[in-house]
Amino acid sequence: MALGTDEIATYLAFAEQLADASGKAILPHFRQQMAVEDKGSRADGNGRYDPVTAADKAAEAAIRSLIKTHHPDHGIHGEEEGVEPGTSPLLWVIDPIDGTRAFITGMPLWGTLIALNDGIRPVLGVMDQPFTGERFLGWGTGARLGDRTLSTRPCASLAQAQVMATDPRMFTEPDTRAAFDAVEAQARMTRYGGDCYAYCMLAMGFVDLVIEGSLQPYDVQALIPIVEGAGGLFTSWTGGPADQGGLVVAAGDARVHAEALAILRPFIT
Amino acid sequence: MALGTDEIATYLAFAEQLADASGKAILPHFRQQMAVEDKGSRADGNGRYDPVTAADKAAEAAIRSLIKTHHPDHGIHGEEEGVEPGTSPLLWVIDPIDGTRAFITGMPLWGTLIALNDGIRPVLGVMDQPFTGERFLGWGTGARLGDRTLSTRPCASLAQAQVMATDPRMFTEPDTRAAFDAVEAQARMTRYGGDCYAYCMLAMGFVDLVIEGSLQPYDVQALIPIVEGAGGLFTSWTGGPADQGGLVVAAGDARVHAEALAILRPFIT
Repeated sequence: MALGTDEIATYLAFAEQLADASGKAILPHFRQQMAVEDKGSRADGNGRYDPVTAADKAAEAAIRSLIKTHHPDHGIHGEEEGVEPGTSPLLWVIDPIDGTRAFITGMPLWGTLIALNDGIRPVLGVMDQPFTGERFLGWGTGARLGDRTLSTRPCASLAQAQVMATDPRMFTEPDTRAAFDAVEAQARMTRYGGDCYAYCMLAMGFVDLVIEGSLQPYDVQALIPIVEGAGGLFTSWTGGPADQGGLVVAAGDARVHAEALAILRPFIT
Repeated sequence: MALGTDEIATYLAFAEQLADASGKAILPHFRQQMAVEDKGSRADGNGRYDPVTAADKAAEAAIRSLIKTHHPDHGIHGEEEGVEPGTSPLLWVIDPIDGTRAFITGMPLWGTLIALNDGIRPVLGVMDQPFTGERFLGWGTGARLGDRTLSTRPCASLAQAQVMATDPRMFTEPDTRAAFDAVEAQARMTRYGGDCYAYCMLAMGFVDLVIEGSLQPYDVQALIPIVEGAGGLFTSWTGGPADQGGLVVAAGDARVHAEALAILRPFIT
């Protein structure tokens, strides 16, 4: 289902309403002592600890309620409550707090991820960070943070690249940690601990490569239109679509993307 | 040289003036494309890449200039320009941008660290994050962020602890990485990528343990009065003073501190 420019603009404005609501639901919980439940469902290599808080649940509930009111025919796929199919092919893909570990340690690097998928691919995405007041928006052919147009920067080679990954222990599939280490060994610098923020800094031109693993569709769908809208690439480790998560590579410059894939691919194929 | 309560208050207000000046010097450079020089002087296990920018230099120059004007007898030890001894035992210990790698990747986790050492130990410290507008202050017997009094939280055991370290590759001395890994294996959760911010989140009660290595005096002196002022402990891996940097452990609860030291100590002694 191809959406026109006007429809994209309308849904982007609606996605901002969703972000307003989630921010209001989350902020009262940030940096408050709170109960943390362990879902223990994701094998991401960090002791299987998978925290979820009242803030995640409140934010997703606020978002779902608005979608059901304004677009009852649309489907919803959220991290906490799963998939509710709609009668329209349009599907909202939501992670109320991407980076729950950042959230529970008080670090301002978590974000609310909101994507609209047209049945084929995510066509727009929002990464909202209400504590810092930053809202990154992307629609595949453009991306912005407030009034600032986002644009990836040129980077001629991996040897000059600033690389990010949330955690080197997220590479749990066979040989994937070795593959990541091989890229890291050739990069200028690697920094851990980014979550969704790392992709936004790539879209802004301060990070050249993000390599991650063990991701879910709701971890990436909002970020793909932001990165691609800023001129970057966002694929799987084999160069295919990244919208189902798993092993992903985002790059600001096609040369760095090609170099990373050439290193990663042999480890997994 | 023991300072009285009034002197501490006066110097804390002056340290805030220094932070105002450094924030003004740094912010125009944040998230701008800029030249990054590689000092290459610190063996911290991440390819020896040691970035420094015009922002680091401008901030340290602004701080030095104010100290020389208002307290010409005081000494200064800053990361970029080294030590200028004073005629007084009082020494300002400065890291204009702690977390330069966070800074150059656009992440808001860097901070300006300003400590006053009385010739024996750091007696007050400021961690200033001008982008988020956060200023953490500590004076050993108290600590605050704005109007909020900072206080570490109880944590009965390492098995319940949220642990942070900027980068697992910072443990470059023999056996120190194995020591860190042994603590990590017993903790509830570890998160990387904190820099000075991790210690402030410990002081605020959201992180239970920070374990780091390869640190300099200017990386820790401002943070010690903040952590101790919030009720935490800040020592070397053998339980001695941490003010010269090296291998350090900060903990919010003495039980977790003792458990961590019991694991770390055998690796290095």
